[in-house]
Amino acid sequence: MTSRIAVIAIDAVQPRVVADFWCNVLGWQVVEEDETGISIAGTDGSWPTIDVFAVPERKTVKNRLHLDLRADGMTTAEELDRLLGLGARRTDIGQGTDVSWVVLSDPEGNEFCLLSRTVEEARG
Amino acid sequence: MTSRIAVIAIDAVQPRVVADFWCNVLGWQVVEEDETGISIAGTDGSWPTIDVFAVPERKTVKNRLHLDLRADGMTTAEELDRLLGLGARRTDIGQGTDVSWVVLSDPEGNEFCLLSRTVEEARG
Repeated sequence: MTSRIAVIAIDAVQPRVVADFWCNVLGWQVVEEDETGISIAGTDGSWPTIDVFAVPERKTVKNRLHLDLRADGMTTAEELDRLLGLGARRTDIGQGTDVSWVVLSDPEGNEFCLLSRTVEEARG
Repeated sequence: MTSRIAVIAIDAVQPRVVADFWCNVLGWQVVEEDETGISIAGTDGSWPTIDVFAVPERKTVKNRLHLDLRADGMTTAEELDRLLGLGARRTDIGQGTDVSWVVLSDPEGNEFCLLSRTVEEARG
């Protein structure tokens, strides 16, 4: 008797750019698209999925919600290289040099982190 | 060879208040707590979990990321009543009256939506 997180919604000025980025990051695919936005999801049917919503206004301040990722099927260093190759940018939100994670941002500046331990290491 | 969403991080001026709210909403529990924040998770080990991080600054604009919830184990109307009882507030972000979801916000004003279809209906 609770709620369940079904969707993470992300506002975007350019939904296609943001949706494509997150599809590449997560290995997901576009499952629905209309003038309001783009829904993306993994092939395994797991939740939450992501809805990228078209909005007119650009990001102005650091997001109060962000996603933390773990590399799945490769080392964290390899995944960092891959994310940078996809267009992720290293981002300084005042985290300093004493943290174990890497702060990045997506094409519209939405901050996210790559955590130091991989999925396998965190599950182990 | 991808990344996986492990954690949804939420900045909070009062981490305990925000963490307790989301524990109640999701039926989760506190799994770790220190001076930097509070980690909450479900008992089934599923990802993503939520980390509530202590920050000094208050929320100033509509969040660009938000969570969409589905009622799990009860009707959407019943779940809406329960969420309002937990301290969720009905929130106007310009959604109008023509949408199927209800926009709410948590104790620090983080917007979230209760979708019209329950978990069971969405899965069916």
